[in-house]
Amino acid sequence: MTVQKWQEASRAKQAATSKLVETWLPPDFSVDDKLLNVMDVPAKYLSQTDNEITLLRATELVEKLRSGSLKSEDVVKAFCKRAAIAHKLVNCPTEPMFEAAVARSKELDIYYSENKKPFGPLHGLPISLKDTCNVKGVPTSLGYVGQVDRIAKRDSSVVEILKAAGAVIFTKTNLPTAIFHTRVPHQDVVTSMDGQETIHTVIGPMANSLQDLELAMQVIANAKPWLLDPKCAPIPWQNVEMPQKLCIGVMWDDGIVQPQPPIQRALKEVVEKLEKSGHEIIKWEPLLQKDIVNVWETLFVSDGGQDIKIELERSGEPVLPRIQRILDRAAPLSTFETWQLQQRKLIIQKEYLDRWNATVEQSSTGRPMDLILTAAKPTIATEHDKAPVYVGYAAFVNLMDYPSVVIPATQVDPEVDEPKLSTREAWNPDDEQNYAAYDPVVMKGMPVGLQFVGRRLHEENLLACAKIVEKALSA
Amino acid sequence: MTVQKWQEASRAKQAATSKLVETWLPPDFSVDDKLLNVMDVPAKYLSQTDNEITLLRATELVEKLRSGSLKSEDVVKAFCKRAAIAHKLVNCPTEPMFEAAVARSKELDIYYSENKKPFGPLHGLPISLKDTCNVKGVPTSLGYVGQVDRIAKRDSSVVEILKAAGAVIFTKTNLPTAIFHTRVPHQDVVTSMDGQETIHTVIGPMANSLQDLELAMQVIANAKPWLLDPKCAPIPWQNVEMPQKLCIGVMWDDGIVQPQPPIQRALKEVVEKLEKSGHEIIKWEPLLQKDIVNVWETLFVSDGGQDIKIELERSGEPVLPRIQRILDRAAPLSTFETWQLQQRKLIIQKEYLDRWNATVEQSSTGRPMDLILTAAKPTIATEHDKAPVYVGYAAFVNLMDYPSVVIPATQVDPEVDEPKLSTREAWNPDDEQNYAAYDPVVMKGMPVGLQFVGRRLHEENLLACAKIVEKALSA
Repeated sequence: MTVQKWQEASRAKQAATSKLVETWLPPDFSVDDKLLNVMDVPAKYLSQTDNEITLLRATELVEKLRSGSLKSEDVVKAFCKRAAIAHKLVNCPTEPMFEAAVARSKELDIYYSENKKPFGPLHGLPISLKDTCNVKGVPTSLGYVGQVDRIAKRDSSVVEILKAAGAVIFTKTNLPTAIFHTRVPHQDVVTSMDGQETIHTVIGPMANSLQDLELAMQVIANAKPWLLDPKCAPIPWQNVEMPQKLCIGVMWDDGIVQPQPPIQRALKEVVEKLEKSGHEIIKWEPLLQKDIVNVWETLFVSDGGQDIKIELERSGEPVLPRIQRILDRAAPLSTFETWQLQQRKLIIQKEYLDRWNATVEQSSTGRPMDLILTAAKPTIATEHDKAPVYVGYAAFVNLMDYPSVVIPATQVDPEVDEPKLSTREAWNPDDEQNYAAYDPVVMKGMPVGLQFVGRRLHEENLLACAKIVEKALSA
Repeated sequence: MTVQKWQEASRAKQAATSKLVETWLPPDFSVDDKLLNVMDVPAKYLSQTDNEITLLRATELVEKLRSGSLKSEDVVKAFCKRAAIAHKLVNCPTEPMFEAAVARSKELDIYYSENKKPFGPLHGLPISLKDTCNVKGVPTSLGYVGQVDRIAKRDSSVVEILKAAGAVIFTKTNLPTAIFHTRVPHQDVVTSMDGQETIHTVIGPMANSLQDLELAMQVIANAKPWLLDPKCAPIPWQNVEMPQKLCIGVMWDDGIVQPQPPIQRALKEVVEKLEKSGHEIIKWEPLLQKDIVNVWETLFVSDGGQDIKIELERSGEPVLPRIQRILDRAAPLSTFETWQLQQRKLIIQKEYLDRWNATVEQSSTGRPMDLILTAAKPTIATEHDKAPVYVGYAAFVNLMDYPSVVIPATQVDPEVDEPKLSTREAWNPDDEQNYAAYDPVVMKGMPVGLQFVGRRLHEENLLACAKIVEKALSA
């Protein structure tokens, strides 16, 4: 009976969402279930104009919207149509707000024609949000069936800032139990912002270009978020110029799990290009990585997984296998024990900081290394529910509270990439599981992203460096 | 037997410390046990030069040291002599490093004569540290007998910065169990720096003037502490100019414990002076104060007091009565319960932030209020072990992570201050205990400090405002 209840709730929610997107779908739309890579589908159904609009960069869109050469209503409608198709293909927009978004876009167009100026720096720009963000009047389910009706009473600070800047929120996107992997494919560019708790989910922009990321960070930082969020440091966005020669520390693997072969190839190719462009590459040895993964995993569920369990029990929805594995090893700690782990975390952070500073001895730039380059994760996108669980490549960034940018580097190519070996000596079970998920034939064409990691609260430097890196990669 | 052990350890430590200061005492020195106020004693024993040197402000000393008109050796020796007397009078310097300090001062004098320039911004300036700071090779006992032999393996970041700036560390000063009250009298000026944990002890400079505080903050912030301490935000010191008319929110009491009468008088007098100088005074109602005190007290010992107990058990030293009271109500929380409290803390912080922003409606300056003015604590310095335990006036500052400056306002004067009432209706037991400790005759001449509270991570604004306030108070 309980099982039925969550399924009912889930189905009702899906039906309601489907209905919301239905009218936005092209009349001749149909889904080919056999299709693995759906990247080319939207272009088939959208008008040429709508397709072009939705492929523009945010910076380009904002320029056209602010200069009046595009109307917000047209842009927002184009994105709603594309999101409706995406919903049917991968079920990713969970809270479509298409009607409200169009209404808002019309208001902004009127504002523009009456005042002869844009409403704000993001005038009329459609933005989609991760479900964690509260939008007043819209549910924040956090991926839990038991929370599908939790209506947000007020906007999250970041939503407040985006709305005040003239952006139009048109949908929220799905996320999994405990936000533990996102369906966000890693070809997208992700950067993390300041997160000041022990283990913290982070909010950061995703976009098609570094310029777009910079725009988002600038708008948010310049809106003085510290006046809205008591945890934000009062650091306005600074325009940073980095010298043209960078020193980059490469972490080929983290000593625990070897990245799948196409990721290793991507690292080599990127390093070659960087060196060819005159940048300096030094080796960054994984530092206290076993310790970091242990502290991270233990702190993450130091409540014994109670929070996750309570959320799941609301509706009786079943535990996904990979979440079950986390819950199985989650032990409820006393606050005293958590204090010891937090103390350990601080010691690791200090060690990392000292070691980063010490790279000045190896570098010829007169500065310590500017960035760490490593895998974003050791795994390429896999089939549903087959992803390995190893978190190490994200955990060190998260535990150190470093910002990172993920940049697309290459695609899986069975012609070039190492074939899957039938026998291979694994370092440990995590390494074994990670390799087991590898298959260059199935993964053909899948994007491979690499991550560039910067220093704490130095997002400006990171993005300035990333732009130099991008130039080197496209040279 | 156990009792004897801690007493032995304690006595051995006291004897060792006494021996270290012995040679620095004037030959004719003796202590009058009946003397309650010992402020005038040092001047009787020090040479006129030594007395003058030790009464100079840090900014004045630094100017003379950097220009070469004073030698570091002379300055350091003068301070060692004064500290030796202070040790005999109030037992406050626990780790005298007089010989090492003199040796260092000589090196700095040689550096100066050889290089014709100062070693750093604090060239040759003697500085005393709170015992929490690690100085390599010196014990950090944190006030626990069981830790008298815990020798620090490296300098704390702040010590590293001060030494690199040319300062000479000449002693560390005592603190009580769990750092829960400091023997630091509140006539001194204290400011808090960034503290990013849930409940955090703070480090901040104490000095004779706001200029000295600014010097300390400047030197520390400009040394890029974020390269030494992973928890510091990368915010360089900024020179802030505040408009000459400030808007100050006065919190007359916190709604739970009424400040003792001389503190209430001080508040009235200061408000009058501020108004006379053209500043705007608005009323700041205590906000969620009961909630704040509860969250603070619960989080402070959310390990069930285990940390304190372990430290005390090392030596078997007895629990002081006021610490016993804290331990009695300390319940060990699960990490899940602590998470709920931390969540509550964040909600309170957000409420405070919003309410602070909203004062822009009441203010005529076009800005929200610049500062909160309130009691530093509701209690004036009392006899040993008689101090009331109420923490509310510090707890809201600490929980909100606000910086505060304590400025001396007046002294207790039995001729002016309300006599002690034999009957009085108390608000609650804390309020009753606080009033019970009041006696204007015994407290005669005791300093009364008031605290000015600024916005999070805006130490520059706070100090700039405090200088304007100081001008108004001396007008």
